[in-house]
Amino acid sequence: MSGERLIYLPLGGAGEIGMNAYVYGYGKPGKERLMLVDMGVAFPDMDTSPGVDLILPDLGWLVENLNRLDGILITHAHEDHIGALGHLWPLLKKPVYARKFTATIGRLKFEEAGLPLDAIHTIEARPAAVEIGPFTVQFLPVAHSIPESSALIIDTPAGRIIHSGDFKRDPTPVVGEGWDDALMEAVAAEAPVKALMCDSTNVFSLHPGRSEASLAEPLTEMIKGAGGMVVATTFASNVARLKTLAEAARAADRSICVLGRAMKRMISAAQETKVLTGFTRIVSPEEALEIPRRNLMLLVTGSQGERRAASAALSRGKYLGFEMKQGDTFLFSSKTIPGNEKGVLKIVNAYSEMGVDVVDDSNGKYHVSGHANRPDLEHVHRTFLPDMLVPMHGEHRHLREHVRIAHEAGIAGIIATNGMMVDLTGEVPKVVEHIEAGRVYLDGTAQVGALDGVVRDRIRLALNGLAMVTVILDEQNEPLGDAWVELMGMSQTGLGDRALNETMETELTEFMSRASGKILSDDDKLDEALKRIVRQVAMEEIGKKPEVRVVISRLSAE
Amino acid sequence: MSGERLIYLPLGGAGEIGMNAYVYGYGKPGKERLMLVDMGVAFPDMDTSPGVDLILPDLGWLVENLNRLDGILITHAHEDHIGALGHLWPLLKKPVYARKFTATIGRLKFEEAGLPLDAIHTIEARPAAVEIGPFTVQFLPVAHSIPESSALIIDTPAGRIIHSGDFKRDPTPVVGEGWDDALMEAVAAEAPVKALMCDSTNVFSLHPGRSEASLAEPLTEMIKGAGGMVVATTFASNVARLKTLAEAARAADRSICVLGRAMKRMISAAQETKVLTGFTRIVSPEEALEIPRRNLMLLVTGSQGERRAASAALSRGKYLGFEMKQGDTFLFSSKTIPGNEKGVLKIVNAYSEMGVDVVDDSNGKYHVSGHANRPDLEHVHRTFLPDMLVPMHGEHRHLREHVRIAHEAGIAGIIATNGMMVDLTGEVPKVVEHIEAGRVYLDGTAQVGALDGVVRDRIRLALNGLAMVTVILDEQNEPLGDAWVELMGMSQTGLGDRALNETMETELTEFMSRASGKILSDDDKLDEALKRIVRQVAMEEIGKKPEVRVVISRLSAE
Repeated sequence: MSGERLIYLPLGGAGEIGMNAYVYGYGKPGKERLMLVDMGVAFPDMDTSPGVDLILPDLGWLVENLNRLDGILITHAHEDHIGALGHLWPLLKKPVYARKFTATIGRLKFEEAGLPLDAIHTIEARPAAVEIGPFTVQFLPVAHSIPESSALIIDTPAGRIIHSGDFKRDPTPVVGEGWDDALMEAVAAEAPVKALMCDSTNVFSLHPGRSEASLAEPLTEMIKGAGGMVVATTFASNVARLKTLAEAARAADRSICVLGRAMKRMISAAQETKVLTGFTRIVSPEEALEIPRRNLMLLVTGSQGERRAASAALSRGKYLGFEMKQGDTFLFSSKTIPGNEKGVLKIVNAYSEMGVDVVDDSNGKYHVSGHANRPDLEHVHRTFLPDMLVPMHGEHRHLREHVRIAHEAGIAGIIATNGMMVDLTGEVPKVVEHIEAGRVYLDGTAQVGALDGVVRDRIRLALNGLAMVTVILDEQNEPLGDAWVELMGMSQTGLGDRALNETMETELTEFMSRASGKILSDDDKLDEALKRIVRQVAMEEIGKKPEVRVVISRLSAE
Repeated sequence: MSGERLIYLPLGGAGEIGMNAYVYGYGKPGKERLMLVDMGVAFPDMDTSPGVDLILPDLGWLVENLNRLDGILITHAHEDHIGALGHLWPLLKKPVYARKFTATIGRLKFEEAGLPLDAIHTIEARPAAVEIGPFTVQFLPVAHSIPESSALIIDTPAGRIIHSGDFKRDPTPVVGEGWDDALMEAVAAEAPVKALMCDSTNVFSLHPGRSEASLAEPLTEMIKGAGGMVVATTFASNVARLKTLAEAARAADRSICVLGRAMKRMISAAQETKVLTGFTRIVSPEEALEIPRRNLMLLVTGSQGERRAASAALSRGKYLGFEMKQGDTFLFSSKTIPGNEKGVLKIVNAYSEMGVDVVDDSNGKYHVSGHANRPDLEHVHRTFLPDMLVPMHGEHRHLREHVRIAHEAGIAGIIATNGMMVDLTGEVPKVVEHIEAGRVYLDGTAQVGALDGVVRDRIRLALNGLAMVTVILDEQNEPLGDAWVELMGMSQTGLGDRALNETMETELTEFMSRASGKILSDDDKLDEALKRIVRQVAMEEIGKKPEVRVVISRLSAE
């Protein structure tokens, strides 16, 4: 191990979907020069991260090794690849490289965060290349559900790595470059591929993926057949879908109005960078309100049921002057990401109550995925014939299945999840170290470690409710007044409809009146005793134990 | 309206899946004699009902009209039809009627709740009938995913109602009576059907349902092909599936061990009532641990990812001496109910990490639904040719679609959701009144109204965290000591890593020292002012506003 080595270290995205952050290094062990690919976020949920705004990868290890880090690359502008840029870049302060559209989105984030725009460098697609420490990197256009998604060709002294990024094998993605088999074969012919680091999201989808272009006809037909207003939602960043939907609407003689900040931002970034051209004129909400319903289509955000997005807002009633009515159509040109089902169904049922016809993708006609399905993954394996396959971007089950497929094809593979440092130098990948990798919660403007207990406390409060106890003692450890209990998130009444806090106060005051000086004078002992009483009373009266906080005030003569 | 009328009033299950509770009445308006069909529960989730144990229908209206209620019928023993019996029967105290297996499950609930077992009456299937006030009711066997599920034939002075209960059109359900087209036609020929109240759960499933019997072959094949231990989960009450799985295991030379209280209870109730016969011998966990892995199959609870059930426990490591290993197989012979995806995937990924092969129903071979799909629903409509169709057991979107189908077939239909009282007397159904229908949360042993604010407070605590402020004043409204702040579920530090509670205490103490007597002497004003300061500091320091509780203690000389 005295020689140099090529390492791979996922800090996010390996063992989960979301929060992509992958480190590559080359050099002597422990002295490798490093680069980071992607800085994504994951999204919180009520079950595991209530109240949290965003989930960020813990870049602690990179910060400790900051003097070895030479740059940051962003493969594409989806939030799970770029979302942490504005929040975590200040920890790293290294140059950021991306293609034009992605860089534009990155600069919008930098602008909001007050960061220096010139830290983001626009890189052209292959054959342009950028040197980052010992690495020479080319951006290789692939199709995905956002413009300018790129794989990376990473040439290292130990051989060539292909980092797939998120991709699908779609030759006609409507916007941006399609997947080009000939180009990929040319790349494969240039140099042997040591390792293919590969998107795993759709490894369980057994049929070949369909092209974005296949949606135009069914969408046009559906929109032509609709009677009232049509409202369509999809992922805000799916610029190709927005174009397909807009053209379908035009063919049905409908004007387009866009509701939702994220969607407007994506469209204008795509137009500004010229990846989107010939997009139909967008009318303003004010204009739209003057257009007959059957000549109007709204494109709106909120395909995942997000409470604050336009889809949900319209399902609750009037929004920006628009109101859905009997005979209107609402189209989900999207799939529901696992975990979002209830939010989406809430909207569907609200529209049902309004008499709105909801059309979703259950027949498979109005949406295609942005990720490569199993047969397409296998095709890509065959194209690049790597020495080894390292699956990324997937839960453990995806990574495991992806490795299984590689093994079947005679390709070495390894399941490397967040924090596992893999040495790619030899014939087969080898785990050489385990790094502490984790999650950081963006909570308001604060960053809170996932293991700091803050969110654990919130979950406990949500499950158990809270009893707050206040007692006051004088210098002689004599109670001043009675104990005081406030309840939050708990039944206010216990057995026989008595006020629960009063029952607690009676018991606590009674206890204080006969407690020994040894207990009354010792904050810890007193706290413990009072908590025990509160829990006991709660258990008897309402059959569950709340969280308890005790505030002991000791007054001294002044 | 001076005559008598036939009414229908859903108090749960109409506009949601779960919590079924339907009232029928006959008599002069406002004086109808009433009966209740089913007393089900719904299940809580972290998003809308954190910490809640069960969701019960609000039977307030029935309690107000208790002197008009003559009885309670239970169609089958699924929790969403019988689960509230032990909790809400004490409010009604009327005789309960059910078939043998259902009655047995009901008595187990009564036993646990200390209620009189003789209130539950076992009724034989048709042609046996029970008189309940003006109603004559027969239990008509239908196939479902639990033994002895029954439709109800309700004969009333205004005509016959068929209340479908939960059903599928499965002639060979493995356990219990199959759906019998000839029997149904005979029933239809007896008397015209005024109204068909019909299960809507699967109205969006467009293919005809498959029979439980079709699972035997693929399951046997799969289990025969498995190498190590096989662990299979399904809904605990799906006795037919348990039988199919057990027989498949025997064919593969495997002994069966059952883990999970609910499943054992269902099996023994089914054996006791003789609806399940010839079930293979179940070995105890102790015996099972002595059996070679490849000769063993565990049947376990927790198909929905429930944290405390056996499936989840095994995914976390050793459980009752059992430990899953590389080469074992875990089978979900079930579908994931929307909202449970994340819990189920958590288990799947944990097994993936152990090297366990997970087999689920994604290929459609190892599970069939217990509900009638659209073509089967249409068949049933044609069989009974009712004057009107009233869809039940479904979210609004299901009810609406079901009515749409009825209309297409020339049958009058109405969307009646919880609380809508429908007059069925005339030619077409007519909403005559809106009753306050809602939900009650079972929280520990307490029952809390869904609108009481208890759960709302918990959600707020979970989203925002809590700051607890304590201040003490003397008789002259002079602050005694400094303000004290405790934080829960909040970042402990603000800008520049300063302790957030100390920053708040400084601001609060400073405010108190210069506040006017007018504020200091007025609890409401002081409370408001202190809250405002805490929120302001939080907003500046961590960018979000917590919940705030202020305890103001005023000491008087003693």
